[in-house]
Amino acid sequence: MQQIIKSDHLITDVEKAIQNIRHDKLFILTDENTHTHCFPLLAGIPLMRDAKEIVIPAGDTNKTIENLTRVWQLLTENGATRHSLLVNLGGGMVTDLGGFAAATFKRGISYINISTTLLGAVDAAVGGKTGINFEGYKNEIGSFYPSEAVIISSDFFHTLSHSDILSGYAEMIKHALIHSTAEWEEVLAYPFNEADYSKLNELVFRSVNIKQDIVEKDPYEKNIRKALNFGHTTAHAFESFAMNSEKPVPHGYAVAWGMIVELWLSYRLCGFPKEKLQRSVRFIQEHYGAFPISCDDYETLYEIARHDKKNIGDTIHFTLLSDIGDVQIDQTTDKELLFEAFDFYRDSVGL
Amino acid sequence: MQQIIKSDHLITDVEKAIQNIRHDKLFILTDENTHTHCFPLLAGIPLMRDAKEIVIPAGDTNKTIENLTRVWQLLTENGATRHSLLVNLGGGMVTDLGGFAAATFKRGISYINISTTLLGAVDAAVGGKTGINFEGYKNEIGSFYPSEAVIISSDFFHTLSHSDILSGYAEMIKHALIHSTAEWEEVLAYPFNEADYSKLNELVFRSVNIKQDIVEKDPYEKNIRKALNFGHTTAHAFESFAMNSEKPVPHGYAVAWGMIVELWLSYRLCGFPKEKLQRSVRFIQEHYGAFPISCDDYETLYEIARHDKKNIGDTIHFTLLSDIGDVQIDQTTDKELLFEAFDFYRDSVGL
Ligand SMILES: NC(=O)c1ccc[n+]([C@@H]2O[C@H](COP(=O)([O-])OP(=O)(O)OC[C@H]3O[C@@H](n4cnc5c(N)ncnc54)[C@H](O)[C@@H]3O)[C@@H](O)[C@H]2O)c1
Ligand SMILES: NC(=O)c1ccc[n+]([C@@H]2O[C@H](COP(=O)([O-])OP(=O)(O)OC[C@H]3O[C@@H](n4cnc5c(N)ncnc54)[C@H](O)[C@@H]3O)[C@@H](O)[C@H]2O)c1
Ligand SMILES: [Zn+2]
Ligand SMILES: [Zn+2]
Repeated sequence: MQQIIKSDHLITDVEKAIQNIRHDKLFILTDENTHTHCFPLLAGIPLMRDAKEIVIPAGDTNKTIENLTRVWQLLTENGATRHSLLVNLGGGMVTDLGGFAAATFKRGISYINISTTLLGAVDAAVGGKTGINFEGYKNEIGSFYPSEAVIISSDFFHTLSHSDILSGYAEMIKHALIHSTAEWEEVLAYPFNEADYSKLNELVFRSVNIKQDIVEKDPYEKNIRKALNFGHTTAHAFESFAMNSEKPVPHGYAVAWGMIVELWLSYRLCGFPKEKLQRSVRFIQEHYGAFPISCDDYETLYEIARHDKKNIGDTIHFTLLSDIGDVQIDQTTDKELLFEAFDFYRDSVGL
Repeated sequence: MQQIIKSDHLITDVEKAIQNIRHDKLFILTDENTHTHCFPLLAGIPLMRDAKEIVIPAGDTNKTIENLTRVWQLLTENGATRHSLLVNLGGGMVTDLGGFAAATFKRGISYINISTTLLGAVDAAVGGKTGINFEGYKNEIGSFYPSEAVIISSDFFHTLSHSDILSGYAEMIKHALIHSTAEWEEVLAYPFNEADYSKLNELVFRSVNIKQDIVEKDPYEKNIRKALNFGHTTAHAFESFAMNSEKPVPHGYAVAWGMIVELWLSYRLCGFPKEKLQRSVRFIQEHYGAFPISCDDYETLYEIARHDKKNIGDTIHFTLLSDIGDVQIDQTTDKELLFEAFDFYRDSVGL
């Protein structure tokens, strides 16, 4: 399984992680932004001097077959062998594309993820899902191929925008909700205004381990890994809806709003405690504001959700909670109740 | 592990194999030749009526990213989901490319290999290695991703040329040599002139199982799977040499000739019995003729072999035998002895 390294001394921790994996040549994958903001933080590592850096354009729209082919090409041209090591330095885009390049170059080489976004650290870098977008579909092409190690360091987070931080934080709220009340209390107590990076690093590390424990039990998402989909059925509907109206929203924001809907469904269908519902919803509303929908949009959202690829047939599937840490997978609801949940969401965020 | 099905009733066996795997939509991958010669043999299967056939151009030179992308595209456009099933109907080219498409479409869907060449049946279809050529390198991009089932039927072999049959048969000689004297006796006794397809089917099935047993013990080729490289260090040198002089030879022929060289090295370095050496060499010489090399080519062949990617550093690695069924991996030799082996090869084939 992937080793998760909580780094308090970036230079030495990265150096050690690289040395731990026998390899002949070293390659570093960055995107334009992590090349500028993150690569310099590793400059002090002697091993980096002989490493070949591959830089790709930034952003999810560049998670394409063209950039993948470029990475393959540069590996080939620079003499990478099946014993070479790839280090992905970036957010989820770099770790997804780089992980897939590693999975497929000479039928698989070793790689390490160094996550430079909060979303990457807490979600994308861990769990072995790699891939690219294809023909307008997200992650249509990819494979399950875990990295040897994931390095978590909040040193990179200083150059992230507030909304990047919040977007990643939503997945941490999700992990807390599917894990335990203690974790949830911690996550709700984080002092956003002070930006305590050392505290954040610790919370991230714990959060990643919650994901890792679940993935280990069910690497190919046959059952319990679906716990990680909490909030996501609605989130994906919100994201598609926003995309269609050409006002895309950050994934984590959609997850935060989606959790409001699905916490309420949990309350109604599975007996999730009302007080925990209310505190969670308040926290989300305070930090994430509102995604504007009116009751005229309900039908459209419903249709989008019905076509989600996670469904079996036409019935919408949710992961719900009967309490914090008590996950109920493969739950379904009727249209009416879902519309009530949308009403609750709109009330909660003041629409 | 992959289920290997020796089919004596093609229609019912294929139908059963497909029904055994839960799926929503069925896709069949063929190349231009297997579309013409092999697809009609499955026409009697009712399931085939709703299946979507994807046809790609034939031959190893078409095992490219362009054709892979076409397969992904057609899967997407025809509504393939992660629960769809792909059937590869063809030789090693189709099972390699189709297997890799299955490995990577939505992070992996199920697939079945129906081998229509002898080489495909006995070697390519089994063992989980999938991939495409890239930038002039063979199988540069790919993954380990075994099919659910492999169907072996000599019904397809009737339309193969004599040299296609011989090419595949060389790998069967190899499997026999690394397995047991009994198997080797059987393989040497096959009546090529009568073309006994039912006997051939049985031999192929046993041969595939030899490969399967080895792959199961070492799926990622860390050690004992290297047994399957017997004959191949020299074969790859011969193939590259032939390619450079623009007179490519069928892979299996190169393996047959390579086995002469490596049987002799086995005899000299590992005490392989002389009588078994002689009988094996005679069989190969009778059926495969000669690959023309002169002593002026030795240096070139040596240099090619030194750059084989299976080496560690500059030392040429061989898989040798101390007897039939008694494999010695990671053997090395000096230049002088290798040149003696080339001399022996030239003598044996009458050059
Ligand atoms: N594999 C998985 O399990 C999984 C899970 C969730 C999301 N994802 C994928 O992850 C991607 C989203 O992740 P993301 O939000 O990290 O996106 P990202 O990698 O695109 O990063 C967002 C932006 O921040 C920049 N950036 C990265 N690190 C920075 C830093 N330290 N300072 C300044 N700028 C920096 C990037 O260049 C980019 O412009 C999507 O492609 C999504 O599909 C994958
Ligand atoms: N994955 C592995 O472990 C592995 C092992 C060995 C070889 N291979 C790969 O397999 C390929 C070679 O295999 P191959 O020799 O089967 O090549 P192939 O699939 O290209 O088939 C050879 C030719 O025969 C045609 N053909 C196939 N079946 C036919 C039939 N029944 N009747 C008439 N024509 C037919 C094909 O269209 C093609 O033109 C190479 O790409 C090689 O790299 C892979
Ligand atoms: Zn998410
Ligand atoms: Zn071979």
